[in-house]
Amino acid sequence: MRSRLTSIFRQKSTSQFLTVGLTGGLIAGYLFSKHKPIVHAESKTSIIIGERKPALPTFSMTEVAKHTTKENGYWLAYKDGVYDVSSFVENHPGGKQILKTAGKALEACWKVFTIHQIDHVYEILEEYRIGNLPPGEREANAKAQEEVLDLFQYDPERINANENFFIRSERPFNAETKPSILVSSFITPVEKFYVRNHMHVPFVNINEYKLEIGNEKSAYSLSYDDLKDKYQSYTITSAIQCSGNRRSAMNNEEQGTVQGTPWYVGAIGNGTWTGVKLRDVLESFGFDKEGKHVQFIGLDCDTSQRCYGASIPIEKALSDDVLIAYKMNDEVLTTDHGYPLRIVVPGTVGARSVKWVNRIVVSDKESDSHWQKADYKVLPSSIKQPQQVDYDREPALQEFNVQSAICYPASSEDGNKVKILSIKPNDEDIKNQKLTIKGYAVSGGGRQIQNVQISIDHGKTWFQTELEQLAQPYMGAYAWTLWTYRIPLNDLPSKPFDVMCRAMDTHANSQPDTPLGIWNIRGVMNNSWHKITLQIDQNFPKSKNQNRTD
Amino acid sequence: MRSRLTSIFRQKSTSQFLTVGLTGGLIAGYLFSKHKPIVHAESKTSIIIGERKPALPTFSMTEVAKHTTKENGYWLAYKDGVYDVSSFVENHPGGKQILKTAGKALEACWKVFTIHQIDHVYEILEEYRIGNLPPGEREANAKAQEEVLDLFQYDPERINANENFFIRSERPFNAETKPSILVSSFITPVEKFYVRNHMHVPFVNINEYKLEIGNEKSAYSLSYDDLKDKYQSYTITSAIQCSGNRRSAMNNEEQGTVQGTPWYVGAIGNGTWTGVKLRDVLESFGFDKEGKHVQFIGLDCDTSQRCYGASIPIEKALSDDVLIAYKMNDEVLTTDHGYPLRIVVPGTVGARSVKWVNRIVVSDKESDSHWQKADYKVLPSSIKQPQQVDYDREPALQEFNVQSAICYPASSEDGNKVKILSIKPNDEDIKNQKLTIKGYAVSGGGRQIQNVQISIDHGKTWFQTELEQLAQPYMGAYAWTLWTYRIPLNDLPSKPFDVMCRAMDTHANSQPDTPLGIWNIRGVMNNSWHKITLQIDQNFPKSKNQNRTD
Repeated sequence: MRSRLTSIFRQKSTSQFLTVGLTGGLIAGYLFSKHKPIVHAESKTSIIIGERKPALPTFSMTEVAKHTTKENGYWLAYKDGVYDVSSFVENHPGGKQILKTAGKALEACWKVFTIHQIDHVYEILEEYRIGNLPPGEREANAKAQEEVLDLFQYDPERINANENFFIRSERPFNAETKPSILVSSFITPVEKFYVRNHMHVPFVNINEYKLEIGNEKSAYSLSYDDLKDKYQSYTITSAIQCSGNRRSAMNNEEQGTVQGTPWYVGAIGNGTWTGVKLRDVLESFGFDKEGKHVQFIGLDCDTSQRCYGASIPIEKALSDDVLIAYKMNDEVLTTDHGYPLRIVVPGTVGARSVKWVNRIVVSDKESDSHWQKADYKVLPSSIKQPQQVDYDREPALQEFNVQSAICYPASSEDGNKVKILSIKPNDEDIKNQKLTIKGYAVSGGGRQIQNVQISIDHGKTWFQTELEQLAQPYMGAYAWTLWTYRIPLNDLPSKPFDVMCRAMDTHANSQPDTPLGIWNIRGVMNNSWHKITLQIDQNFPKSKNQNRTD
Repeated sequence: MRSRLTSIFRQKSTSQFLTVGLTGGLIAGYLFSKHKPIVHAESKTSIIIGERKPALPTFSMTEVAKHTTKENGYWLAYKDGVYDVSSFVENHPGGKQILKTAGKALEACWKVFTIHQIDHVYEILEEYRIGNLPPGEREANAKAQEEVLDLFQYDPERINANENFFIRSERPFNAETKPSILVSSFITPVEKFYVRNHMHVPFVNINEYKLEIGNEKSAYSLSYDDLKDKYQSYTITSAIQCSGNRRSAMNNEEQGTVQGTPWYVGAIGNGTWTGVKLRDVLESFGFDKEGKHVQFIGLDCDTSQRCYGASIPIEKALSDDVLIAYKMNDEVLTTDHGYPLRIVVPGTVGARSVKWVNRIVVSDKESDSHWQKADYKVLPSSIKQPQQVDYDREPALQEFNVQSAICYPASSEDGNKVKILSIKPNDEDIKNQKLTIKGYAVSGGGRQIQNVQISIDHGKTWFQTELEQLAQPYMGAYAWTLWTYRIPLNDLPSKPFDVMCRAMDTHANSQPDTPLGIWNIRGVMNNSWHKITLQIDQNFPKSKNQNRTD
């Protein structure tokens, strides 16, 4: 209920400032609004960058400002440092957005897009260091921070976010569900469902909102009420998963560090989605007869009116299963999840389930957005620098692969950082003298999970877990599967040991043992066996007839 | 052309003996025929079984003959040995066929079904040894061999089979294409295409042949000419792959030996298939409105009229892509490949592409054949004995998973037996100072291959191979992909080294590193990284400026 109230509140409190155009995803309201900024915690970093390095030459901001073209190179400043990022431009996970900072100081941009304030990004930037600013210029740049507009003023208040999530960035808000919460219910509650925003949350005046449906020649529009009233409503249960889920586990010593938000296992959730079939809407306007792709454009746009966008093949769009959704878990969509309307493409990577959808375009071409054309692609393992890539050769991700993860036991801390979990027993486990292991599994394209197995001897022997799953139609298995296994305490070593899980779908797709064969610089689609290292807590009461040897 | 002539020849030469009924798959001709038996090479084995073991008790054939029921147990004799196979019945890859030998000597059966004459089967049988026959009874049983009917008299003559194939069993004929032949053409020639027969090749009089199409209430029939004349013809290019392809590489020390024909990498081929759409035929009789499965029953039946059968879900049957085929590579089907008609279910395991199809039945139930209900399922790794399985819990395989294999260089011998291949250079490689590596890749469900990578350092670094593939529609990529990579000689060690390959499809499905996570007692769907071990032949001429260190 909280989420719903928040969304209604936001709508009322700001409607006097904003209008939303039919076609443009126009967000101009922030220019006029002086709402109290929402307070976000700063991201935590341990690496210091931009400090003066006396051995390097000095360049003034005037000099920096000359480097804003391909010919002259792209320079920028951060604190006391000067950087030449020319060879990083094609690398940038956010695409050519980076060019907006060319010739300028980074502080203003990074204050807004706090996603950059992590060690990994700091390390990359410092690789491109070429010099220092003259004394005094750092302070002048810092002052410019004060004048940055608050693009994020319409992001909702996120109560208790730190209880439910590991927050990966505040601006845009990227937060994954904590593992033990993931497996505590088959349907993930709205306020605990991971959030992956690419920009700020757009403001919508529902009375003026129109969804545009068209092709390159003509377009029609539907109001929110039109859409709900004129088409039959359907509800499906489907997981949504970010392509980058489990990215952090793709890093390894042999192959290197991957680029992007370092998700652990929680960039996934399982919800019910209520809406109308995309097919029905396309058919009603006669847009089902031609075109190879259906593009979705969101209302989340940057100051240059570059909006989030993605597309899916027409065959999928005309299938039985793609929704234009207005409810999640039987409640009106919250602003973080795409209010008023979002696309839900079940069995497909989350990037295609566009939130705050504004326009639907049938076309012979894929979306030309950065997120379709360059990001969310599995590059070959041999590519160590994205600028080596001919992106047009590599297909945009659609269906995801088969995935599983161990979610319980899980540390209360960030799973990426904790190497060994000391097992805290619960009453049931003490009584049963068993250790309960729980997790989720899911496959793409509507393929049902056939089994999930766990191993405590690195894959030599496997235990068959119990599955909680829906009876779902052939190639319509979009909900995830939860699984449980209880290992007798007598079978566990007292030294630290690894637990691994792997799932298989009903068409024999399975997970690779390690990330070695699937490593890619963008770190997407990591579905290698998930591993946690456990140590039995010495306070875990043991039965008296138990004989354990190490 | 040879294959086609053979099929026509067979039809003429034997038509006076046989008729083929509309519904039964009736094969009675062999009862009356005394054709010259076709000579087959005996399979080679190194293990001796059935020799007298003085420490065991003696049982007469009269005693053996009493054990033919569940209550009394199932006994049989082979040479001087007596065996109690009661606990193996559920294990038997050929299902309850084994019960026909209960109470009898095995010689007669194994003379016909030579598939049993391999070390692996010998080892299993000897585990069930309980005693010896009295002196003289072995000889009496041997004499019975002479009187066995030649079920296989209508199998075609297979000229040069040993050049094209590794023959895994003569009766039924099971033969895989040699690896270097596989990659020598994008379309596998008919006479080089692997053959997986479950029984003998049935005889067909084309003038009397009728294909039955029905449900549980009613049925219609079509002659061969009706089918070709009344429906539009389509041609697709599609790989067909046996579920057990690469089974032999699933055996490992930690998990054990798997059961079934020990295929190397050649139980796959890529052909063009011409026929009519199953959907069109079902629609023409109104059988597209109900039912959950479409069953196919073949003409290949045993002496109890138990016929080969399989089924696919109705959704797949009504898709655009399932054919009732009458041509392969633009020639009339040969008898080994299903003359006159076979089903082709692209993207799905070969077991569902039923040959010599006789009946098509729309039903709420799957085929109840052994090959649908018990065989061709991926059992959990924890199952070490098939009798532990509740088969109804495990789904029948449909789509296959993503697969790739190295086919060149390949030994002229059986790939299963050769551990290190000494590389024989070809002229082009010597000139280029490169070693050419070639193979194939394919994924199930019409998913296109995105890339194939090879590694010579066990997966730490990967090389991107060049692909030869068709432009195929979304989810209609049924043809395989051939791939090539040329490794500079300078990059190769002079000691033996491993080459590994792995493929990924456009939906991020990939191959597991090892068989550990996918091991199953039936040994199906092994798609772990394929590995060969190479040693550079000392006669491979090296360039003078080459500096190699070991």
